[in-house]
Amino acid sequence: MFVIGERINGMFKNVAEAIKKKDKAVIQAIAKKQIAAGASALDVNVGPTSDDPKETMKWLVKSISEVTDITLAIDTTKLDVMEAGLDACKAKSILNSVNANDDKLKNLLPLAKKYNSSIIALTMDKVGIPKDSDGRLELAMKIVASCMEHGIDLSDLYIDAVILPINVAQVHAREVLKTIRESKMLANPAPKTILGLSNVSQGALPKYKSLINRTFVSMAISSGLDAAIMDAEDKDLMESVITAELLMEKQLYADSYIDAYKKSKNLS
Amino acid sequence: MFVIGERINGMFKNVAEAIKKKDKAVIQAIAKKQIAAGASALDVNVGPTSDDPKETMKWLVKSISEVTDITLAIDTTKLDVMEAGLDACKAKSILNSVNANDDKLKNLLPLAKKYNSSIIALTMDKVGIPKDSDGRLELAMKIVASCMEHGIDLSDLYIDAVILPINVAQVHAREVLKTIRESKMLANPAPKTILGLSNVSQGALPKYKSLINRTFVSMAISSGLDAAIMDAEDKDLMESVITAELLMEKQLYADSYIDAYKKSKNLS
Repeated sequence: MFVIGERINGMFKNVAEAIKKKDKAVIQAIAKKQIAAGASALDVNVGPTSDDPKETMKWLVKSISEVTDITLAIDTTKLDVMEAGLDACKAKSILNSVNANDDKLKNLLPLAKKYNSSIIALTMDKVGIPKDSDGRLELAMKIVASCMEHGIDLSDLYIDAVILPINVAQVHAREVLKTIRESKMLANPAPKTILGLSNVSQGALPKYKSLINRTFVSMAISSGLDAAIMDAEDKDLMESVITAELLMEKQLYADSYIDAYKKSKNLS
Repeated sequence: MFVIGERINGMFKNVAEAIKKKDKAVIQAIAKKQIAAGASALDVNVGPTSDDPKETMKWLVKSISEVTDITLAIDTTKLDVMEAGLDACKAKSILNSVNANDDKLKNLLPLAKKYNSSIIALTMDKVGIPKDSDGRLELAMKIVASCMEHGIDLSDLYIDAVILPINVAQVHAREVLKTIRESKMLANPAPKTILGLSNVSQGALPKYKSLINRTFVSMAISSGLDAAIMDAEDKDLMESVITAELLMEKQLYADSYIDAYKKSKNLS
């Protein structure tokens, strides 16, 4: 699975502090730690408190780029911050995120095209997040069609069916799984699928968060999930991902299959 | 999920010794431990070495029945042992197992009817276990039709899609998941589905067995699995089962949902 590390986000205290003090060593250390733990890309989000989000995004991207050429997912709702982030990326970038609103598609897809970025697209619009998979798939289809109109290769598109916290929106989990499964039938070649995994356990008791995350990711992988924004440093979670992919035959069996996986990816 | 404890099986050393010495206290202690850990039924298998499997089965069933009236799954390939076991059951029984062979269906379904037993039916026949889900579903359909002819309520039928060890038959896991999902479309009301879970990790390194079991059961629950013969005493496995069911909305969310589940079932 394509693991996008979630840790470079201004909502975490150490990242917020590093941003404030312009302490790039902290950011670079987090980036290296996530990559060593299994992240194939890093999400970059300035967080809610930045005074100058555009400059902060540029600074974050540049700081990370000094130590790695890994793919970066520029995570913002602001158009100017998005363009600044994509423009600052030297390596491959991901636009995170677009959704099914007309203005979002109109403004952001040309940007993705311009910077040759992959796209994370949420199955939501102005009305909100549909409760069932049919509603989500309708929005996914709108996104797929819009990407085709903009000449975007569907293998660059990650549909995010938007998992909500299980403690307040329990009905959504199985609808998200169904959406992942059926997204594969929207086009040929099929769009990829992604989840913002940690959201499922937001608000749950800390002692159960990892258990909920790894159980849900196993279910999602069996439904065909291709990627997740998640905590790569959660060892139990990474081992569940590797085991789920083994069971889906995405990795060849070896007795020491977890070591084999880590070795193949140069992980610690 | 309906958890059938797998531990009363003569292939385990302490059970084999207890059978040899006719030490019913050992058997009764195992039974009680499994029930306390979460088993809603117990599988009973005399194992490969018993001199008189018919008498042994009767003795096992009677020994267990002295301490609990839990449902027992009589697990044998021998017709006379099966009848002896079902006949000895005071409480609800499960016939484990029939398969899609004509003679098996002809001999065993009337027995299930006579003893008002539920039925575990393997999707295999004389040719073997089909490699893909289509082949398994064809055999499942044959079993469903045969049950209907024998006047057996399909809610008493558990289709077992036969998971094979991942170390030698990696391709089967996802076909089993697909079979579980599609079994639900064979009839209305649908037959139930079951797995002999531990088989998936047989031959794997001991340190990975529980991880493989709990990852696969999470995937299977998201595909609609109703029951599993498994190690109820594996705490991590039980917690994965409870969490997977929470995510599929089979249990209402509570912050302490694992405690809530245990409390509702009087578990330790």
